[in-house]
Amino acid sequence: MPKIAQAPLGMSAESTQRWTENYRLATQDSGRLFLMAGDQKAEHLNDDFVGGHVATDDSDPEHLFRIASEAPVGCFAAQMGLIARYGMDYRDTPYLLKLNSKTHLIKTAQRDPVSLQWQSMAQVHDFVRHSGLRVVGVGYTIYPGSEFEPTMLSEAARIIQDAHAMGLLAVIWAYPRGKAVGEREQDPHLIAGAAGLAACLGADFVKINPPLDAAGAMDGTLLGEAVAAAGRTQVICAGGSETDAPEFLQRLYEQIHVGGTQGCATGRNVHQRSQPDAVNFCKAIHAIVVHNQGVDEAVKLLHPNA
Amino acid sequence: MPKIAQAPLGMSAESTQRWTENYRLATQDSGRLFLMAGDQKAEHLNDDFVGGHVATDDSDPEHLFRIASEAPVGCFAAQMGLIARYGMDYRDTPYLLKLNSKTHLIKTAQRDPVSLQWQSMAQVHDFVRHSGLRVVGVGYTIYPGSEFEPTMLSEAARIIQDAHAMGLLAVIWAYPRGKAVGEREQDPHLIAGAAGLAACLGADFVKINPPLDAAGAMDGTLLGEAVAAAGRTQVICAGGSETDAPEFLQRLYEQIHVGGTQGCATGRNVHQRSQPDAVNFCKAIHAIVVHNQGVDEAVKLLHPNA
Amino acid sequence: MPKIAQAPLGMSAESTQRWTENYRLATQDSGRLFLMAGDQKAEHLNDDFVGGHVATDDSDPEHLFRIASEAPVGCFAAQMGLIARYGMDYRDTPYLLKLNSKTHLIKTAQRDPVSLQWQSMAQVHDFVRHSGLRVVGVGYTIYPGSEFEPTMLSEAARIIQDAHAMGLLAVIWAYPRGKAVGEREQDPHLIAGAAGLAACLGADFVKINPPLDAAGAMDGTLLGEAVAAAGRTQVICAGGSETDAPEFLQRLYEQIHVGGTQGCATGRNVHQRSQPDAVNFCKAIHAIVVHNQGVDEAVKLLHPNA
Amino acid sequence: MPKIAQAPLGMSAESTQRWTENYRLATQDSGRLFLMAGDQKAEHLNDDFVGGHVATDDSDPEHLFRIASEAPVGCFAAQMGLIARYGMDYRDTPYLLKLNSKTHLIKTAQRDPVSLQWQSMAQVHDFVRHSGLRVVGVGYTIYPGSEFEPTMLSEAARIIQDAHAMGLLAVIWAYPRGKAVGEREQDPHLIAGAAGLAACLGADFVKINPPLDAAGAMDGTLLGEAVAAAGRTQVICAGGSETDAPEFLQRLYEQIHVGGTQGCATGRNVHQRSQPDAVNFCKAIHAIVVHNQGVDEAVKLLHPNA
Amino acid sequence: MPKIAQAPLGMSAESTQRWTENYRLATQDSGRLFLMAGDQKAEHLNDDFVGGHVATDDSDPEHLFRIASEAPVGCFAAQMGLIARYGMDYRDTPYLLKLNSKTHLIKTAQRDPVSLQWQSMAQVHDFVRHSGLRVVGVGYTIYPGSEFEPTMLSEAARIIQDAHAMGLLAVIWAYPRGKAVGEREQDPHLIAGAAGLAACLGADFVKINPPLDAAGAMDGTLLGEAVAAAGRTQVICAGGSETDAPEFLQRLYEQIHVGGTQGCATGRNVHQRSQPDAVNFCKAIHAIVVHNQGVDEAVKLLHPNA
Repeated sequence: MPKIAQAPLGMSAESTQRWTENYRLATQDSGRLFLMAGDQKAEHLNDDFVGGHVATDDSDPEHLFRIASEAPVGCFAAQMGLIARYGMDYRDTPYLLKLNSKTHLIKTAQRDPVSLQWQSMAQVHDFVRHSGLRVVGVGYTIYPGSEFEPTMLSEAARIIQDAHAMGLLAVIWAYPRGKAVGEREQDPHLIAGAAGLAACLGADFVKINPPLDAAGAMDGTLLGEAVAAAGRTQVICAGGSETDAPEFLQRLYEQIHVGGTQGCATGRNVHQRSQPDAVNFCKAIHAIVVHNQGVDEAVKLLHPNA
Repeated sequence: MPKIAQAPLGMSAESTQRWTENYRLATQDSGRLFLMAGDQKAEHLNDDFVGGHVATDDSDPEHLFRIASEAPVGCFAAQMGLIARYGMDYRDTPYLLKLNSKTHLIKTAQRDPVSLQWQSMAQVHDFVRHSGLRVVGVGYTIYPGSEFEPTMLSEAARIIQDAHAMGLLAVIWAYPRGKAVGEREQDPHLIAGAAGLAACLGADFVKINPPLDAAGAMDGTLLGEAVAAAGRTQVICAGGSETDAPEFLQRLYEQIHVGGTQGCATGRNVHQRSQPDAVNFCKAIHAIVVHNQGVDEAVKLLHPNA
Repeated sequence: MPKIAQAPLGMSAESTQRWTENYRLATQDSGRLFLMAGDQKAEHLNDDFVGGHVATDDSDPEHLFRIASEAPVGCFAAQMGLIARYGMDYRDTPYLLKLNSKTHLIKTAQRDPVSLQWQSMAQVHDFVRHSGLRVVGVGYTIYPGSEFEPTMLSEAARIIQDAHAMGLLAVIWAYPRGKAVGEREQDPHLIAGAAGLAACLGADFVKINPPLDAAGAMDGTLLGEAVAAAGRTQVICAGGSETDAPEFLQRLYEQIHVGGTQGCATGRNVHQRSQPDAVNFCKAIHAIVVHNQGVDEAVKLLHPNA
Repeated sequence: MPKIAQAPLGMSAESTQRWTENYRLATQDSGRLFLMAGDQKAEHLNDDFVGGHVATDDSDPEHLFRIASEAPVGCFAAQMGLIARYGMDYRDTPYLLKLNSKTHLIKTAQRDPVSLQWQSMAQVHDFVRHSGLRVVGVGYTIYPGSEFEPTMLSEAARIIQDAHAMGLLAVIWAYPRGKAVGEREQDPHLIAGAAGLAACLGADFVKINPPLDAAGAMDGTLLGEAVAAAGRTQVICAGGSETDAPEFLQRLYEQIHVGGTQGCATGRNVHQRSQPDAVNFCKAIHAIVVHNQGVDEAVKLLHPNA
Repeated sequence: MPKIAQAPLGMSAESTQRWTENYRLATQDSGRLFLMAGDQKAEHLNDDFVGGHVATDDSDPEHLFRIASEAPVGCFAAQMGLIARYGMDYRDTPYLLKLNSKTHLIKTAQRDPVSLQWQSMAQVHDFVRHSGLRVVGVGYTIYPGSEFEPTMLSEAARIIQDAHAMGLLAVIWAYPRGKAVGEREQDPHLIAGAAGLAACLGADFVKINPPLDAAGAMDGTLLGEAVAAAGRTQVICAGGSETDAPEFLQRLYEQIHVGGTQGCATGRNVHQRSQPDAVNFCKAIHAIVVHNQGVDEAVKLLHPNA
């Protein structure tokens, strides 16, 4: 298991204490983060929530909150507007406010990606104070290599600093993308660069896409460079589109034990399942991430009554 | 009938109370919203107000205020500048301040649409205080898929949060548009995505164009995906250009009872009629939306003396 | 004669009173506005001030102030910087501060027009306070149809609101222009749209170019649509380049009595004349606009000693 | 000799007094300004400071300060950062802070020129207060006709107003330039327009390039239109690249006595000479500008021991 | 040895004293600066930290801090976010906060370079106060000749002024780059221009790339023009990619004693070595820069036990 991280420097004593409490809450005292990502309603519009193998439960946004409430997730990340609408009925969930989002309508071929900050940090502050929710942190996506990179790096750096001043964690979604990146979006070396960039910005956690080798295959060892480059900024892998649950858990185990990542960020793989399946799936992830258990023990949790 | 919505989280106790009062006023205690849209003088310049079948009454902006004053609308949405000029003579109308508008002169083929915030929220605050009008909320249009989407999402998120802090409702007009959208502006799945996006932004109500099937026909069932995707954010349909009144009412009834929408936003269909016809038409809409009556009962109100 | 306009809503009692005093001063208690436009030194550089039939007096900016001081104009509109340089010697003139201006060097074929706010409203406030001048209002130009329209609408809306908060009138110069407008700059229907747009922004007066019929001819009846569309926002026509004085007065009379406009904005037609001619010409305009006299009476004032 | 200019309106009594003192200091009680321009290290990088006929003294920035300290200049204009580095050793020089600068690397053929404000006016205020230097004013360059004109006009107007509020003079460098201007950069009529534009912005002095006739020749009479157009804003001519000293003085005399300018702005012509030559050359300029002497008397000062 | 520099003008007495202490600390009382540059994790992503001859130590960001802690560097420059993560364990190192960075993904052929300010100066202030670290200054990169030059010059000027107001040093990285610069990035005359530009901005130190002659060779004499142009702003040369240590020291000696530079900024040449090699290499650099020793004495420090 990783050591419990130290709070970054530059905060007041009070903020440092609050950050530490939020860190322990989000990592469930494990030093590892199981982030349930629920920002796709903006990022992918309704594509992830209907059709194909997607459980019908998923057409209702409350599905996300029901899962996050019953499942042992470290935090549930979504846009503030959505949390404001359901949080009163799901008060115990630790929340992470995703502060920027864009739709996927404009493809990179048309224009390099750009996603700007939605609410101001003063508004975040007011929301935390008035909502009474357990807000543990904020999230922000950067696209290194986009022609709009400078604006996003500037917003990210300021958000991170302000989050820390409020005692909140800062998680950076770092996805190299744009004309200058082309087909290299999941190149291990470039992803390592993005992880290091997030460390320079001051992120507590950086969420990256799992790197692929030249043949397009995933492999835990490919993560080593990124984990090293991120240093004390902890790396978590995005889960991607839904896959077979045991395969997912096997890959997660390797990411952590071979690649050295310290948690995971899972969205579609969780919420595209029915409520009971999603909760069980989260329990299995939790076993690996937080309880440091093996794949076999985790797989058993997928079907508790089997 | 829908349940009365709960106020979103993140407001002070005082703002929550004010929001709730405004919500009850705007929905006429029904939980459904009959919004009379009067922002076309900027959006469509004078095209909607003269010519063809348009009643001559409509050439004068006061026509809008006369209707809104006599008809049982939930709120009348227009730009603050216009309300400032007539509100003193129509003090009982609940108003919604439409905060951004653009003309229709530049077509999507020339440039993707962008509409920016006019007055600052501090100016809105002063206007509400000094005017003494019953301002129930603010409105803002977003164009998901436009190259200017990031700026509009950012403005929308901040406006919604500030509106809530003042106890005002926030209504988002959400119209997918731009080169990346092309002919799919009224695609049911894309419109569902736009509705979910508005929910992420924190909108209390989202105004969408009614979706069309592959053959270009309207159908209440096509709304189901959007209403589900919006979750607790309430969906209302735009009325579009003037149509036959009974047909309009039939469609509205289906939108609500088949599609699950919770109100409507009607502009041209109302104000392009003469004053008495417009008021009667509003009474018919009100019967369906607020009194939950059937189409036949509503149609009777179109010609009270018949 | 028009009724004296009511102050717009949304101002404090003190600002409302000050606005009303400024309105009466600017309209000379008539409800109609005779605005002398003197912003051409920025808008047209030196083109309007030398050469051809232009009086040699006009090469000196003080010519503008001398006319405005001796002639019965409702207000003299110019940039704050110019007024700061001459106002001390012409303290009785009511001034209107034109807050944006651009040169005419870049033609629409090269780039759509854009004119941005010069001084901040805090600077306007300080100028009014320290100068001791009779500043009755501010002016701002918008170009509906320009690709830069969103920025100008946003600036205009905020300026109008801030002006009202200071008790100042707000006059919008509204000129449809840009690639999307093409040859339709003086189309009556489009100009009516621009007038309605200015009403939505909250303008007290909107200055438009007189519309032309399909054959390019001017006709008072063409103004009807714009005057109706503007509602309680009062329409005044720009004077254009210098024309024969009696013809000008005849056209002005028709604009008011046929078209329903409530004043005029005259620049080149005034200041390109010699000082005595310009003053007499203003007296003639004043007779029609403020004293509601006929063309014959006005024409007599052109040559008082004849 | 010109009359001592009045302070512009719109300042507090204290600022008016300070402005007046700064005006008398900068014009050496003559009403005419001898501005030594030293902003070329940013504007032209090192091109003006080495090579060809340039004195070796000029490779060191301190050369500028040594000249300004010993020579009878009205003020020495340079960037705040440079003045902060040398001012402690040259405390008696009246300084003018040049607030924007760009390099000459990008040619108009590549992109229209744009130069943005460097330090904020609050920083200018702190610099004046803490440095204890005799800062008499600020300077700012505009490029009328550039596609970036709107931003520069807005910055210029605000800087001028803020400068006046601090009791500082405001000098505008006005150079028509850009694709829309083409070869007309020194056209007398266009330069007159630029001078009038600076007057509208509120400049106390406008620095223009001397106009050329159709054959490309300079002639004092060509300045008349600009001097008239600028009105009470005083016109000074830029000196251009180094020329023969007596010829320069002859031209300066004509600019003032034929063209009606009220001073000069000289850079390269001064600092590209050795320290003693530069000081003597400044004495000769001073004789014409401030002491209103003739060319012959001035020429004698070039070689005091001859 | 250079004289100890005077503090720039324009600061309060307290800030002046703090600046002076920071200057003495950073220059180790020598007036020369040995800056260890550690901003490459953002600027070059992971390219500088793995592969080829790079020591395996370098894959971990803490390697930078270990070197900076044990080696006699004047200051260690890195992004605030990175320093916040390690500073608590390396409290004695003098730090310089690099305030802007961009990745190298977008090449000049695609778009001119632009790097924007990350944290605000208020955030810098809070970081310095709360971290308790020995922060001696800030750094910022400008790209003269880029189409984004105006924005970067404006940010640089304001950062420098604010840094001085906090008593912090300001170091400008000045790299001519962009379509307008083309192949001239290391042209001696252009680099001299960039150094002079940094002086105009108010930089205390300017970091330049060592100029190359027409044949692409480095030579200390080529630096003379830049050192002269920078005047009292002190010039330090960037180290570039790793080279043979004695050759590096020889070149450094020439830069200082032939070229007149006053320190160096070394990144890859230091951190791409193993910890002991890197520390010894720094000792050798320190001998030349701070102790003013010769190359032979410095070379001996590379292998202390040999």
